[in-house]
Amino acid sequence: MKREKVSTAVIRRLPRYYRNLEDLSRAGTVRISSGALSAAMGITASQIRQDLSCFGEFGLQGYGYNVENLRREIGEILGVNRGHRAILLGAGNLGRALMENFHFDRSGFSLAAAFDVDPAIVNTTLAGVPVLDVAELEAYLRKERVDVAVLTVPSSLAQSITDRLVRAGIRGIWNFTNMELTAPATTAVENVHFADSLLTLGYMISDSDKE
Amino acid sequence: MKREKVSTAVIRRLPRYYRNLEDLSRAGTVRISSGALSAAMGITASQIRQDLSCFGEFGLQGYGYNVENLRREIGEILGVNRGHRAILLGAGNLGRALMENFHFDRSGFSLAAAFDVDPAIVNTTLAGVPVLDVAELEAYLRKERVDVAVLTVPSSLAQSITDRLVRAGIRGIWNFTNMELTAPATTAVENVHFADSLLTLGYMISDSDKE
Repeated sequence: MKREKVSTAVIRRLPRYYRNLEDLSRAGTVRISSGALSAAMGITASQIRQDLSCFGEFGLQGYGYNVENLRREIGEILGVNRGHRAILLGAGNLGRALMENFHFDRSGFSLAAAFDVDPAIVNTTLAGVPVLDVAELEAYLRKERVDVAVLTVPSSLAQSITDRLVRAGIRGIWNFTNMELTAPATTAVENVHFADSLLTLGYMISDSDKE
Repeated sequence: MKREKVSTAVIRRLPRYYRNLEDLSRAGTVRISSGALSAAMGITASQIRQDLSCFGEFGLQGYGYNVENLRREIGEILGVNRGHRAILLGAGNLGRALMENFHFDRSGFSLAAAFDVDPAIVNTTLAGVPVLDVAELEAYLRKERVDVAVLTVPSSLAQSITDRLVRAGIRGIWNFTNMELTAPATTAVENVHFADSLLTLGYMISDSDKE
């Protein structure tokens, strides 16, 4: 399969394709035209054709896309079949919301353990996931293969926990704190900054005031 | 103040500037060079100068930026002083995590009410916010000014609640469900898609495997 250098903008859209194709596949849809995919996703049909052409020839003129093949190919590109393993740091409200409701498996991850300081939950199980004492973090990481840490600790602890994870060789951090983390380039950091998102929405509705 | 047409990429960075300037301001920092702001934010100094020049002349050669002035100006652009009012739909784990821990006020919003179907919490107060029956949604929106709805309902209800909000004239939806919502262009939708974010992180660490 041809594989050109892919822009960040295309990479950022791939998860949306993957998620929509998963929904279509689960709903039993076998094939879809770029027009129908466009309508479902709110991306123009020509943008879709251009994006997907980066990864080879998926569509057939007059047929459209085979949903399951395209889902599998994009999943392969995203690495969903690599059996990524995650741990979660900080089993407070947000941490528990993710543990109980978020489908890590649909993004190609399994959640192996959670870490907290609260004696009321340490050494229990939440949503089927063992909760360990954060003091055991380094020992755990020496023993188990872990690719990514989900960071749902209080902001005041974010950098010190990050430093510990980096020293232990973690490869990725999914950061839900509102802190800008300092980490070496060898550790990928993906931020979910709620405040930035709400500020953007505030701008969008303020901007429409002016028109 | 001069105000050019601003690109989406710049708009997306403004909340990060605002958040970092807030942190600096709270820490008592009076002025900062673009170099130091660059180091704190992980954006190049020339990018910072270019971004901020879209909104007028903030920096002074040899002085840098006045933190509080710049924070106030960017806050003004983002609309944080407009007293936006939000409601939250679905006070489950994630909804409660936001109600209890997220500082709506720092993004210029107040959370006026939450709506749920669970009789155990309807007509109680969570984190100081009244929880009402979702059956009262339309009546509430006729009576109260609400700018934005925070959508933390189960995915299966996301579109039907969106339709009700749109009919009631809501101007913005902060969507935490994993659904692509259908809404008219007059309703701004800002998505927080956890799965897309984790898939991107999975791609980043998979990509580094190949190198």
